[in-house]
Amino acid sequence: MYVTIVHVQVKPEHIDKFIEATRLNYEASIKEKGNRRFDILQDIDDPGKFILYEAYTTQEDAKAHKDTLHYLMWRERVPMMMAKQREGVPYNCLFPQD
Amino acid sequence: MYVTIVHVQVKPEHIDKFIEATRLNYEASIKEKGNRRFDILQDIDDPGKFILYEAYTTQEDAKAHKDTLHYLMWRERVPMMMAKQREGVPYNCLFPQD
Repeated sequence: MYVTIVHVQVKPEHIDKFIEATRLNYEASIKEKGNRRFDILQDIDDPGKFILYEAYTTQEDAKAHKDTLHYLMWRERVPMMMAKQREGVPYNCLFPQD
Repeated sequence: MYVTIVHVQVKPEHIDKFIEATRLNYEASIKEKGNRRFDILQDIDDPGKFILYEAYTTQEDAKAHKDTLHYLMWRERVPMMMAKQREGVPYNCLFPQD
């Protein structure tokens, strides 16, 4: 499984809009081939701090996500909502092994 | 869904033992009632840095994990392998909503 954790810091005045844009991306992403997780987490202490936890069965599936219309629309909409540039960190997934 | 991200820093000489102890915990945890994710991730740049990504359907399911024999055994075995105390961070899971 190929996992990326994306860290996002959103400006307080854009939190609702960010959640709505990310919901649309989430709903389409979980229908993609090979998608295993697309969890959207909000920090309990800082509501402007989000984590997108994305996992795909293969590296090709993960890469194909970047070419989808819903991802491209999300990528277009959200930068102006962010307090700083988002950071995506890929991990070596030990378990599950499939 | 109730999500906790556990950050662990393992001493270099204990990495293999830590992975083995965590594999046992993983294999039993994914069979628990309400378990949705129990992903074990390793940092690509720092092989001693791990993330346990744990999700349960209800807060009760998440709490029950702490009373299982496999969790208690893991909790007993791993502290001596760690370079510093582990940190578990609970999140507000926005999506999925079930």
